Amino acid sequence: MADWTTYFEGSNPPEKYDENRTRIQEFVSRHSKDGRRLVLVTSGGTRVPLESRTVRFIDNFSVGTRGSVSAENFLAQGYAVIFLHRLNSLEPFTRHFSRVNFLDLLSLTTTAEGSADVQVDPQHTARLVGVLQRYQQVKETGTLLSVSFLSLSDYLYLLRAAAEAFSHIGPAAMLYLAAAVSDFYIPHNELPEHKIQSANGPLQITMQMTPKMLSPLVKEWAPQAFTVSFKLETDTSILIKKAKQALQKYSHQVVIANILETRKKTVTIVTRQEEQVLLMSDSELEAGMEIEEKIIADLVKRHEKFCQES
Amino acid sequence: MADWTTYFEGSNPPEKYDENRTRIQEFVSRHSKDGRRLVLVTSGGTRVPLESRTVRFIDNFSVGTRGSVSAENFLAQGYAVIFLHRLNSLEPFTRHFSRVNFLDLLSLTTTAEGSADVQVDPQHTARLVGVLQRYQQVKETGTLLSVSFLSLSDYLYLLRAAAEAFSHIGPAAMLYLAAAVSDFYIPHNELPEHKIQSANGPLQITMQMTPKMLSPLVKEWAPQAFTVSFKLETDTSILIKKAKQALQKYSHQVVIANILETRKKTVTIVTRQEEQVLLMSDSELEAGMEIEEKIIADLVKRHEKFCQES
Repeated sequence: MADWTTYFEGSNPPEKYDENRTRIQEFVSRHSKDGRRLVLVTSGGTRVPLESRTVRFIDNFSVGTRGSVSAENFLAQGYAVIFLHRLNSLEPFTRHFSRVNFLDLLSLTTTAEGSADVQVDPQHTARLVGVLQRYQQVKETGTLLSVSFLSLSDYLYLLRAAAEAFSHIGPAAMLYLAAAVSDFYIPHNELPEHKIQSANGPLQITMQMTPKMLSPLVKEWAPQAFTVSFKLETDTSILIKKAKQALQKYSHQVVIANILETRKKTVTIVTRQEEQVLLMSDSELEAGMEIEEKIIADLVKRHEKFCQES
Repeated sequence: MADWTTYFEGSNPPEKYDENRTRIQEFVSRHSKDGRRLVLVTSGGTRVPLESRTVRFIDNFSVGTRGSVSAENFLAQGYAVIFLHRLNSLEPFTRHFSRVNFLDLLSLTTTAEGSADVQVDPQHTARLVGVLQRYQQVKETGTLLSVSFLSLSDYLYLLRAAAEAFSHIGPAAMLYLAAAVSDFYIPHNELPEHKIQSANGPLQITMQMTPKMLSPLVKEWAPQAFTVSFKLETDTSILIKKAKQALQKYSHQVVIANILETRKKTVTIVTRQEEQVLLMSDSELEAGMEIEEKIIADLVKRHEKFCQES
């Protein structure tokens, strides 16, 4: 397995890396001075190129639901949130309208002077008001910093930058690693330059394992932070065992274990001491409640305790 | 290479397949009776699963710009458009706001009765009016049918359904195949059921070549239609040669040849008789013009001639 230092040496930082690193540092510094707790929420999937001028890539199914819903809940709990997300994945607030063609919310009208005007269709007002109020409040307090990534290497560079910014604020920082990070990649120097030609017959792809960044993150980049990772499986028989193995291996605080098919209905909060099952009842789901509300409420308490004990 | 009949036998139709096929048939029949020309615009990339309960998949970079812009231009030219697109890729009209957080276009206000209301921020009205007028006109005339796909097999099933619906209306139908279709796939019976485990070491993937559906499309499904395919490469030295080879192999009408880096600035319309280069000047690009306007204007003329000669 490639070691993480080798990984960074063999890949280039993303576009606007220095600019984004500075934005992150300033955000952390400002909210830390104001006495706010901070959380890095990572969200969405990482793209792994199969060609260096990238036409094809490997991706995963994540659309960023877990991350975007969680970010909203952290904001509601008074956290300042760095939302490190896959470009074009779901984002807090706008995610409520992701299946809506927003042009369908609007009506063409005519002003008193006879020129064309646009109005929000009154039947959609109620739905928009609540979200817009929360969104504008967050804009006014400046508690949300959105940073986007596309590829695996973009993500890893920005993750490290955020973790390093957190290293200055001790236990007040939480890392909530909900992004679906590729376990495999093709090293930059092994990528074909041009689009793979289909006439060459069946395609053989060999991928290397991505170094486990939780290891340097917990040991070197942000050793005092409260770190939460996720374990998503499709096979229930190995889930909790794998979550416990991860806690032992990386010595971080929490693994949220979930199964692909039931992830919106139940998760298990796994720590070295206990396993806490969170479950949504059918009536809660029907009422539009989301499991992330329970997850974040649980984590905020654990983080509070962690800060007191640190 | 798997033959196309074998491909369909070894894969399942997408969800709501019968419903979508019926929608397509009715759309074609209605507009054909009204004397409108019809075009199928395919757009965005196809997802190829690496696992049967899909966490990971292979995808490509397409966000659907070519397809969504082209669909708008076909609508402007009076065509009825079946827009067969990758779920969550760009769509006609809304694509103009794809980089905008639409909540930023709105303001919270208070009604005369003191309750919260939502208004379009006046500074954004001008930008919205034009698009909204065109969008509402298309809704009123019912000339746009949107159908979405996710995976390669979803796409191929729906492509065949649309082509077969077109077989009843002869040369009045155009197929404009702008979707970025995967050249490779893993047959359903070779997919692992569960998420590939990273602990098993480096990942070896063997993919089969996707059967070339242009062949049955031109020969069997819609032999009288005007068919336009795309050739996208990163290597200029092979582009035109590959376009000509495709025309010879499949005997369809047009290949639009383009290079990844310059595809918004220049394309070559390749037919068996000629090669027509379309180019955007810097001033046209700066004025916000799009090359698809020229492409569609060119194709509409060719289609007109094709109909007269058929």
